[in-house]
Amino acid sequence: MALVVQKYGGSSVATAERIRRVAERIVETKRRGDDVVVVVSAMGDTTDELLDLAQQVSPAPPAREMDMLLTSGERISNALVAMAIHSLGAEARSFTGSQAGVVTTGVHGNAKIIDVTPGRVRDALDEGSIVLVAGFQGVSQDSKDVTTLGRGGSDTTAVALAAALNADVCEIYTDVDGIFTADPRIVPDARHLEKVAFEEMLEMAACGAKVLMLRCVEYARRYDVPVHVRSSYTTKPGTIVSGSMEDIPVEEAILTGVAHDRSEAKVTVVGLPDEPGYAAKIFRAVADAEINIDMVLQNISKVETGKTDITFTLPKTDGPTAVTKLTAMQEEIGFSKVLYDDHIGKVSLIGAGMKSHPGVTATFCEALAEAGINIDLISTSEIRISVLTKDSELDDAVRVLHAAFGLGGDEIAVVHGGTGR
Amino acid sequence: MALVVQKYGGSSVATAERIRRVAERIVETKRRGDDVVVVVSAMGDTTDELLDLAQQVSPAPPAREMDMLLTSGERISNALVAMAIHSLGAEARSFTGSQAGVVTTGVHGNAKIIDVTPGRVRDALDEGSIVLVAGFQGVSQDSKDVTTLGRGGSDTTAVALAAALNADVCEIYTDVDGIFTADPRIVPDARHLEKVAFEEMLEMAACGAKVLMLRCVEYARRYDVPVHVRSSYTTKPGTIVSGSMEDIPVEEAILTGVAHDRSEAKVTVVGLPDEPGYAAKIFRAVADAEINIDMVLQNISKVETGKTDITFTLPKTDGPTAVTKLTAMQEEIGFSKVLYDDHIGKVSLIGAGMKSHPGVTATFCEALAEAGINIDLISTSEIRISVLTKDSELDDAVRVLHAAFGLGGDEIAVVHGGTGR
Repeated sequence: MALVVQKYGGSSVATAERIRRVAERIVETKRRGDDVVVVVSAMGDTTDELLDLAQQVSPAPPAREMDMLLTSGERISNALVAMAIHSLGAEARSFTGSQAGVVTTGVHGNAKIIDVTPGRVRDALDEGSIVLVAGFQGVSQDSKDVTTLGRGGSDTTAVALAAALNADVCEIYTDVDGIFTADPRIVPDARHLEKVAFEEMLEMAACGAKVLMLRCVEYARRYDVPVHVRSSYTTKPGTIVSGSMEDIPVEEAILTGVAHDRSEAKVTVVGLPDEPGYAAKIFRAVADAEINIDMVLQNISKVETGKTDITFTLPKTDGPTAVTKLTAMQEEIGFSKVLYDDHIGKVSLIGAGMKSHPGVTATFCEALAEAGINIDLISTSEIRISVLTKDSELDDAVRVLHAAFGLGGDEIAVVHGGTGR
Repeated sequence: MALVVQKYGGSSVATAERIRRVAERIVETKRRGDDVVVVVSAMGDTTDELLDLAQQVSPAPPAREMDMLLTSGERISNALVAMAIHSLGAEARSFTGSQAGVVTTGVHGNAKIIDVTPGRVRDALDEGSIVLVAGFQGVSQDSKDVTTLGRGGSDTTAVALAAALNADVCEIYTDVDGIFTADPRIVPDARHLEKVAFEEMLEMAACGAKVLMLRCVEYARRYDVPVHVRSSYTTKPGTIVSGSMEDIPVEEAILTGVAHDRSEAKVTVVGLPDEPGYAAKIFRAVADAEINIDMVLQNISKVETGKTDITFTLPKTDGPTAVTKLTAMQEEIGFSKVLYDDHIGKVSLIGAGMKSHPGVTATFCEALAEAGINIDLISTSEIRISVLTKDSELDDAVRVLHAAFGLGGDEIAVVHGGTGR
């Protein structure tokens, strides 16, 4: 008898009808003899509706109250799924993140899980119940206030519970049939992957792949929880994310896939004195604004001027803040100007086999050049090559690279409705 | 500096606009120098919408899960009010019933408050915050599960908090201008009452007056919390419920008002043996079905048959259950038949002065007789006379009695929209 943790996203429970379908799938799992813990996101558009209500009563709602408000969504969906399970003749009990022992930092809206002590979940399982746990939330260790976990929080809740309960697997149900060599909506012949190592999935998530959020994969890898990504609309096998790359024989030189990311913008600080300490001032200024920097490029300085340019990428949503911060420090630090470009795209090739195959980078650049796609910035790691392009050329870049490395399959991938969470 | 507890019903917070109005009123109270704790019901139709969703996923939802579901409503409204208060420049924090220390029995859907330990509320008040507490809910002392308190639960929450915090007053904001000598929707010249003693309010609530629920008034009387019933739409003075009837000078012979109740039905057990023990069997059978009996009448037995009839009233919703239960025991107990009438109404005259004024009962019956209204059953207490009539004659009975005892005033009462909770 296994312990299975399942997670269903918002579109899977968007209506009463879909809730009943999900309940059937859950009860089926239980009847096969497994213990089941289920994490459910809020129904469909609930979170957006609550955000809208909040905006109507207050232009700048305090984060603590926003968490009190938004966590109602998961409470509702989990109670409804428990009711639907009960109507199918099985026992079910729902718990909030707090009741399930999900303890977090105090950062409202973006809390991190510190610990999971699922005593009440364990007791309910031992009594024969299916257990529902509200995703995306927990309780602050310090203030005992309710917190939410930021984007992808329900996936992280599921993996964290799976780790704390020593579950055999964590099944993430979404609206795609698993993980593919590229986004099937851009590359019709993207191939379905049966298995992906943790580090590869980490890279794919970091490079923009949206199926699993980075934090969720980090947690899974740290606690060695196999994550099974499946569709809630079909019975296709999905993708298992588990194990490390050392398990992959080197001669196979596996290239996993092509990821893309539209969420970043580019900032260039022009005319910075090319002396020790100046780059540090730029990065410190941005860090003080609590902005994460992704790619960095320092241009070769112009000997005659003794100045250099620094370029970096960051989330688009943080762009204006960073520009404002740096502009305010222009005189103090002493650079010419700040340039901002939010029409960029990032495309990445990921694969365990890259480090032992030097031709990969060359093939990468040649393929893009032949397609007339300009490369703005290059960044590499042992298992990844990323470049910046114009956002209008991003989809083409994905297709070109996918074809250049022979990643396509025979089957045309099918994408189901909704974006899930 | 006083501590004021305020309660706002669902219609007072039905929209973002109304939420902002309520927030303004709350901040005004705080700015006058008082500490404020606010209990808010769920927005408008939220509870009904959630009940509907539950019905769609399950025909017979488990009570525990129903409480998990319904309590989301109050969580949402309290967080939104806190946000609105914050946007007006004041500090506010919302808590669930559980977080506020409302400890209850384990009866889901109809829990009773056992204790209130409002430590976190007190701390937040001491830090200068306005505190919001979700009404209608608490946490079970035994199972630690979330519970709801049954109808009028938000009023009871407010009074219980006021008692635990030693508040100076508990203000209940509703959609009527206070308590009147009769329901203003039936009696246009019903007079507004400035003050009502606890016992009188208890009788009025028990006799059908819906402004304050019985449990709430019982709690207020037990802990001597003055309850101020006011309109959330006007600034009229409202009605203070406090003190005991001994405070009222006897010679004033105050008659408080006329209450009416449409929620009951009448059951008659015909041909019961007129011997010791048989009536007890009837009442035990009904009690075993957890049904509360209100009025009871045992008819004079017919000497020639040695049989008698017993008539009692009960909530209409329990009628079919009681009839089924008794019919099943017909042979065992040995009576002829069970009659059921759910077209009855109950009208009651309430007042402290009744006991020392014997003519009251006579005037009561004469007034109804003159109007051609038949009296079915009479029941009296020290401060109340209640009779059953046909439900179609109930409104007339209310008006007739109200006029017969000169309770009317000069002003036509105004009733505002919505039914509140």
